[in-house]
Amino acid sequence: MSLTVIRYHRGMGRWEPNAHGRLEQAAIELYIERGFEQTTVAEIAKVAGLTERTFFRYFVDKREVLFWGAGALQELLVKTVLDAPRSEGPISVISAAIQAAGAVFQERREGVLLRQRVIGANPELQERELIKLAFLATALADALRKRGVKEPSASLSAEAGIAVLKIAFQRWVREAGSHDLGQLIRDLFAELKTVTES
Amino acid sequence: MSLTVIRYHRGMGRWEPNAHGRLEQAAIELYIERGFEQTTVAEIAKVAGLTERTFFRYFVDKREVLFWGAGALQELLVKTVLDAPRSEGPISVISAAIQAAGAVFQERREGVLLRQRVIGANPELQERELIKLAFLATALADALRKRGVKEPSASLSAEAGIAVLKIAFQRWVREAGSHDLGQLIRDLFAELKTVTES
Repeated sequence: MSLTVIRYHRGMGRWEPNAHGRLEQAAIELYIERGFEQTTVAEIAKVAGLTERTFFRYFVDKREVLFWGAGALQELLVKTVLDAPRSEGPISVISAAIQAAGAVFQERREGVLLRQRVIGANPELQERELIKLAFLATALADALRKRGVKEPSASLSAEAGIAVLKIAFQRWVREAGSHDLGQLIRDLFAELKTVTES
Repeated sequence: MSLTVIRYHRGMGRWEPNAHGRLEQAAIELYIERGFEQTTVAEIAKVAGLTERTFFRYFVDKREVLFWGAGALQELLVKTVLDAPRSEGPISVISAAIQAAGAVFQERREGVLLRQRVIGANPELQERELIKLAFLATALADALRKRGVKEPSASLSAEAGIAVLKIAFQRWVREAGSHDLGQLIRDLFAELKTVTES
């Protein structure tokens, strides 16, 4: 959120403590209880003790409540790639980035699993998630090229990394986060090597 | 298309020779000329010399004109995986399937390139294509499991194969089909091995 937006909220005299978090929590509760389709922004605002107008200060629509973290995730992935030692090869750089993403999911385990319950129940949201993953692959390939990695190595490493993230994450969610996601990711990178060697 | 549907068309007395092909050609011409969003089904039917009603016998909507081949492509991929010799490892089976798909695109080069011009100009259609690719990866992983390949090898090989197809296809389209797509695919599988080994 830009500083301008924060000032605007406060300046309007309607600044509410942790409105973003309260709206998000209310939305996810309602999405799980009634279904995503059946929930309205009015209901979300009411449960959060806020107005619809406040909702739309923080989120474009009710779908964005589930995907607002995608930008920060992309930044983390790109930053990890750009900051990796110059000596590291592309797949090892990508592995570090995917593990950094995995650590964030692991740390926010409960919230992530609730969010996935909502997404898993709605094909349209699942499609949105697939598209976000494809965007992440593009951003990772861009970051690798900035490090001087040539094509097609950059795109292949990026896409392979996102494939690992997708498969590891699906398994982690299926097992309700009982395995360490970072370990699942490391195991899958090792398995990818075995599979492509054969 | 099922036999029932063909019988129905003929039985209605309005059977038109090659209506499917004429509608498809008219649609793609209009999508390129005016843009996908700006084209109506009424215009497509008119250019094809057919009625809107006939259009809706063949296609659910104007988007399906661009994606009706996805089912056949998935069948080809799955069949190639299931028919591969028992001795072949998962990545080599997937490579054969992706090359079979590449051969189909290469054979229909001109039509495929026109279709990609339409998709490339419209973000919503690009998203649709990404989702179709994700479905193909799921179908390939299912087919590998039917051959007895265990997880996560099945999913990893399938996702890696779709990553290769995506990157090879994008390059092939960018170069207007001047390279052989089958060769691009083989080169990328070799590069994938190099990248994951390092």
